[in-house]
Amino acid sequence: MDNNGSELQAYLGRQLALIEEALDCFMPAATIRPDRLHQAMRYSVLGGGKRIRPVLMLAACEAVGGDGRHALPAACAVEMIHAYSLIHDDLPAMDNDDLRRGRPTNHKVYGEATAILAGDGLLTEAFVLLSRSDLLPGVSAADRLTIINLLATHAGTRGMVGGQMVDMEVEGRPIDLPTLEYIHTHKTGALIKAAIDIGGIIGGSQPEQRDALQRYAAAVGLAFQIADDILDVTAKTEELGKPSGSDLQRGKATYPALLGLNQARERARELNEVAINALQVFGLEAQPLRAIARYVIERSY
Amino acid sequence: MDNNGSELQAYLGRQLALIEEALDCFMPAATIRPDRLHQAMRYSVLGGGKRIRPVLMLAACEAVGGDGRHALPAACAVEMIHAYSLIHDDLPAMDNDDLRRGRPTNHKVYGEATAILAGDGLLTEAFVLLSRSDLLPGVSAADRLTIINLLATHAGTRGMVGGQMVDMEVEGRPIDLPTLEYIHTHKTGALIKAAIDIGGIIGGSQPEQRDALQRYAAAVGLAFQIADDILDVTAKTEELGKPSGSDLQRGKATYPALLGLNQARERARELNEVAINALQVFGLEAQPLRAIARYVIERSY
Repeated sequence: MDNNGSELQAYLGRQLALIEEALDCFMPAATIRPDRLHQAMRYSVLGGGKRIRPVLMLAACEAVGGDGRHALPAACAVEMIHAYSLIHDDLPAMDNDDLRRGRPTNHKVYGEATAILAGDGLLTEAFVLLSRSDLLPGVSAADRLTIINLLATHAGTRGMVGGQMVDMEVEGRPIDLPTLEYIHTHKTGALIKAAIDIGGIIGGSQPEQRDALQRYAAAVGLAFQIADDILDVTAKTEELGKPSGSDLQRGKATYPALLGLNQARERARELNEVAINALQVFGLEAQPLRAIARYVIERSY
Repeated sequence: MDNNGSELQAYLGRQLALIEEALDCFMPAATIRPDRLHQAMRYSVLGGGKRIRPVLMLAACEAVGGDGRHALPAACAVEMIHAYSLIHDDLPAMDNDDLRRGRPTNHKVYGEATAILAGDGLLTEAFVLLSRSDLLPGVSAADRLTIINLLATHAGTRGMVGGQMVDMEVEGRPIDLPTLEYIHTHKTGALIKAAIDIGGIIGGSQPEQRDALQRYAAAVGLAFQIADDILDVTAKTEELGKPSGSDLQRGKATYPALLGLNQARERARELNEVAINALQVFGLEAQPLRAIARYVIERSY
């Protein structure tokens, strides 16, 4: 995969097709009782999105020489957890958002109570999937327990939920850079790290490879969030699917707000370099991971 | 264990002491960041309760000849899921309850947003616990995956969350007995069934034993809920820790409302018999399970 974007776009197109198909297949059918609940879950999971976590998981699996398709059930589990977190974050008691990816948020369509339960259902379903004996063949039971533990730890109060809590606590108050990094590395970074690590494990990562993937993941996860912060300032509403500048309006702390736009871009660029360097132990199999890291930065320009 | 209650009370006292100690130990400390979130989680989990699911899990483990203490981490995981479900059920968008076990509900103390995240955190933490490699020694990795799958399936949209959804959908509307049984077997029965099955697996249940425990669990779980419904009508507010007759006031469907008090008691008695009969394959080790089934019925008189 070279540096021009079209090859990455073609790669992403192939991976996205696999991921969308798998999500549709692994989500409970809309006709299963309670049907309205399953419809609400499907509304949020199958309603588009960049699928950055599943894509990274498949790419990490391939980077260590595995078949990305083997990671699809786990990729769906991670995406379900991501979708649940968005549903709960959008609730009136939390961020009170009406729009997500250009569509009404889950509670706007199905009501608050169903949205809460849809989130709960998605979080639980992720662990149903990861523990199913007919999925992830070739992955040992011990490795599957490691995968479940990784995902639960990074999704829980020491990871994503913890980041969301601190983000909420500081809203409207001035915060320092360490607190902002805590929020980003936990709220979004943790699940990205878990996705990449899990992809590697499914692909059969050796200790040195796993270490490299973890360093890549930490850097690319934070860079991704900084780029998102930058985009919130610079992009137009129709590109975002939500009102641009909404973080700013809400008094949410962001990298551009704290460091200025230029220094925020510089920080993203540094992290991108760290991410690319971490991949030196890999050969051509890691080209997608490299291209994704570059893409994360470029889209914030 | 004979038929008089004092021996059961002594047994329950011993088990409860073990369970409370384990919960305190396995819950994230209140000083770990984000501390307010962990405090909110501990408030609900360590705030008392009958611990019926953990007690049944330990008793099921012992019924098949296992050491009940080996089931403690899994018992705590089930109790965390039970506690999360209560926190979310009590939210203003759901049942909007101010009191639980005689204390203000989680969102009344910590606010709605924190209560939502505390529930999310508890649900996730249950799977952290079950997948930890240092816990449940002696249980094979394959059996641990079975345990995780059982718990996730029974806690999710095909189990507890599904029951809560249907319960919400029918509120204030007249419903029939099959719908009421769907709600009860899912909303409360599913987690009780999972707890008993998991206890048996940790104790090393053979297929015939597992089958017997599953039949016991289905009967005792429903009997427990009918007894709860009856108590809501007959008991005083101070005994319940919530306003008595509150289900009735809310227009919630209950067994006494649908069948009348006498027929509801008769149904509970029948289920009790089914539960006791299911235990015929066991010897004296199942006395606590037998005594608990009897106790469930007796307290509703």
